[in-house]
Amino acid sequence: MSNGLPYKTVWVEYPDIEALCKKIGAPPTATKPDGSSFYTLPVIFDPTTNTAVSDSILIAEYLDKTYPDTPKLLPVGTRPLQRAFLDAYNPISSPVFQFALPATHKILRPASQPYFRLHREKLFGKTFEELVPTGAARDVEWAKVKDGFNVVDGWLQASKEDGPYALGQTPGFVDFFIGARLTWFRLVFGEDSEEWKDITSWNEGRWAAFAEGLKKYEAVDL
Amino acid sequence: MSNGLPYKTVWVEYPDIEALCKKIGAPPTATKPDGSSFYTLPVIFDPTTNTAVSDSILIAEYLDKTYPDTPKLLPVGTRPLQRAFLDAYNPISSPVFQFALPATHKILRPASQPYFRLHREKLFGKTFEELVPTGAARDVEWAKVKDGFNVVDGWLQASKEDGPYALGQTPGFVDFFIGARLTWFRLVFGEDSEEWKDITSWNEGRWAAFAEGLKKYEAVDL
Repeated sequence: MSNGLPYKTVWVEYPDIEALCKKIGAPPTATKPDGSSFYTLPVIFDPTTNTAVSDSILIAEYLDKTYPDTPKLLPVGTRPLQRAFLDAYNPISSPVFQFALPATHKILRPASQPYFRLHREKLFGKTFEELVPTGAARDVEWAKVKDGFNVVDGWLQASKEDGPYALGQTPGFVDFFIGARLTWFRLVFGEDSEEWKDITSWNEGRWAAFAEGLKKYEAVDL
Repeated sequence: MSNGLPYKTVWVEYPDIEALCKKIGAPPTATKPDGSSFYTLPVIFDPTTNTAVSDSILIAEYLDKTYPDTPKLLPVGTRPLQRAFLDAYNPISSPVFQFALPATHKILRPASQPYFRLHREKLFGKTFEELVPTGAARDVEWAKVKDGFNVVDGWLQASKEDGPYALGQTPGFVDFFIGARLTWFRLVFGEDSEEWKDITSWNEGRWAAFAEGLKKYEAVDL
């Protein structure tokens, strides 16, 4: 990646996340129903300051603050707006989970599959086989996915003249949040899937262009 | 108002809105269930360009574009974010309506009261007397109002170092949107009401300061 900070990506299997976070001092991001700590990725460890940071938006805040001369993900004048954006985005983008989580399970490494299945199925109270809609229900639920994309497209149309991103010409945190979702869908559904072909055809090809524009920021060993 | 555009405020009674909009060529902002046009305020008429504009965010866009040397409400890099902010704000701020609409009815001029009652009661399927919560339900519903303020407070805390507003030091469109709500509550509940005292005590006095900071922009003959 150009004009940013040097970094090395470490891929971690689900059952190893908690032990790694504890080892490097990355704090938990939530509390489980039983009261114990819940550790999630992404996490960074910055050897320059000997600091571990958890939670993507806190990581972005940390990097913006610690390295003020690099590109900003949360520029002054957009921080509360980007938090509100995520609160608006999350519910309207949730119908895709019933499709994407079972598809994700299939492409995970064997070491991560049982953990992923156990915890996600508990969350939804359904097996992955029950979760993914079929027949007529599939069309209804997939239409909800499309509705969500339409809402975000409506927001982005407000900046037609400014640039392709929520923050205009230069992507901000919420743009990478959307971009990460698109990368997720491309990887788990597959480039040649009906799902990915649908998504990239919606909103006059906005999502294909959006994903393409952010590709240069992807970790090279993805 | 300083360093802005000269303007004159015209107050319009509810039954006169549609005829006035048609007269000055201000387009409707929505369609009624029966298919006919629905006209709402605010509306501006700009004699310099002979243009009428309806809908507050479209008015802000028009003014930003037509008068580029005046303060911007929708700066480049914030437009989709501000639209998403409104979509996140609207559902979490809706529990206040059951309190504020009946209170509004009481302070309207007689010419507006029957229209306001008819249309709002139709929307909720309840009379104003049924809509406003009493007894134990009041505490439950008022707590929901407070929950909504807490969410917005959480967003604004992300800019503690940047300034008091969603856009930082200088208020943007969404800040005036929140400010207009606060003015509404102050006027219909009353400065000495329990409701206004509650609101201005929440979130370490954020809303009292927020309203005070925006007071200089209020129409002087309010």
